[in-house]
Amino acid sequence: MTYQQLFDQILKKRSFLSVGLDSDLKKIPTHLLQTEDPIFEFNKQIIDSTKDLCVSYKLNIAFYEAMGVKGWISLEKTLKYIPEEIFVIADAKRGDIGNTCNKYAEAFFETLHCDGLTIAPYMGEDSVSPFLKYPGKWAILLALTSNIGSRDFQFLESEGKTLYQHVLAKSKTWGSKENLMYVVGATHPENFLDIRKEVPDHFLLVPGIGAQGGDLEAVCHNGMNDSCGLLINSSRSIIYAGNDASFSDASRQAALSYKLEMDKILTNKFGA
Amino acid sequence: MTYQQLFDQILKKRSFLSVGLDSDLKKIPTHLLQTEDPIFEFNKQIIDSTKDLCVSYKLNIAFYEAMGVKGWISLEKTLKYIPEEIFVIADAKRGDIGNTCNKYAEAFFETLHCDGLTIAPYMGEDSVSPFLKYPGKWAILLALTSNIGSRDFQFLESEGKTLYQHVLAKSKTWGSKENLMYVVGATHPENFLDIRKEVPDHFLLVPGIGAQGGDLEAVCHNGMNDSCGLLINSSRSIIYAGNDASFSDASRQAALSYKLEMDKILTNKFGA
Repeated sequence: MTYQQLFDQILKKRSFLSVGLDSDLKKIPTHLLQTEDPIFEFNKQIIDSTKDLCVSYKLNIAFYEAMGVKGWISLEKTLKYIPEEIFVIADAKRGDIGNTCNKYAEAFFETLHCDGLTIAPYMGEDSVSPFLKYPGKWAILLALTSNIGSRDFQFLESEGKTLYQHVLAKSKTWGSKENLMYVVGATHPENFLDIRKEVPDHFLLVPGIGAQGGDLEAVCHNGMNDSCGLLINSSRSIIYAGNDASFSDASRQAALSYKLEMDKILTNKFGA
Repeated sequence: MTYQQLFDQILKKRSFLSVGLDSDLKKIPTHLLQTEDPIFEFNKQIIDSTKDLCVSYKLNIAFYEAMGVKGWISLEKTLKYIPEEIFVIADAKRGDIGNTCNKYAEAFFETLHCDGLTIAPYMGEDSVSPFLKYPGKWAILLALTSNIGSRDFQFLESEGKTLYQHVLAKSKTWGSKENLMYVVGATHPENFLDIRKEVPDHFLLVPGIGAQGGDLEAVCHNGMNDSCGLLINSSRSIIYAGNDASFSDASRQAALSYKLEMDKILTNKFGA
């Protein structure tokens, strides 16, 4: 999917919501446990009830890997079930030497046909560039993450810039706004201002709304650009909104409430 | 496996070699392609021919993920085939928020029964601590990696320390030498001196010998401690040493030549 196609989807659906499929056998409604593939069944119902409200699904690969081969099968089935026009993110935070990253790119872009993959920047350029060679595919690089541990290294200052600012400044020369996004946590709304100075045009994938406590309005105020430039992800607050036979209705309600808020923000910025 | 058990294995086998199973359908001998599970067949023969010469196998998860469900099956079969007393590393470079890392720990320590998992430090403490809760299991944190891109961020200086030195200094307080190792590339032999000042006792996993050009003797001179403290990994130079029906003999020869060099170094340090 291209930059323009993603923005077009956002305007068409009046939403820049990404729904995170962090699907966990221990948390899904228990009546699904009797089905042949409970995780796929859960994901299918979540997708059916939210696909008109979001522009992206983000699959947290850890939750599938934890189940071994079975999880990998659920993952592949889910990916096939997601409608074509929806941007699919593998949230896997990969990053390795170039020779190995070629394989991760093969895994997520060729074998699994995802649109984007989250990447950790610690190992530098040759750990990122293999993901930038696929037209219409995206490397989504960690910049400033949503968790408490983001304070440990990402704010270290060197030559007048924090580490996450160095990551932005260097990495933006490796790709373009057409193949590179950044992860910026909603739990740091004030930092979107300096981040937008460094990368005014790139899309930002923003986790941390919902269970992690981030503020949607503050993030949009400081982070939105002329092509929206934001994908706001919520996982637990949507997919675990309900826990009985009508769980997918509860998920729809949770997604809808984000969507309506986003619609209002989009109208203010781009017109109705 | 405990710290002492790992050192005991090293003294018993006269080797601190780790063999990297970066097994790739495009690179294994073509006669194996007719078998039911070529990657497992390849790994099985490599394991049979090297298991007395090494103390560890390191499985590069990218190579298995690139094959989807089939790759995951080959991975599980390989892990079951490795003898009990050998330290098994999942080289996956994971790292995410705590909630997600609990799942990665489940994937690699409970589902796959690996002894250690490589972890990227960018997201800080809560992305590492979930891996430190399993007795006898190891988080193997990236410090100074072997690739060219290690120059991009790992040497940034802040408050008189490079980023990788900050990673060592902070993270060593999260765990101990009993559950935390560090990745330090053999391509930076001179940096083992300052690294040993920061973490004198921890084991270091050292990739970059062989195809990447690192120098075994220099690494041992600067990096070995009183419990050896080094696992030296080579992947391509061992597993792809031959490419015909007798490939596993060629792999054995390559592993043996490392082992003999290590035996000599161990004798000099700890006696015969």
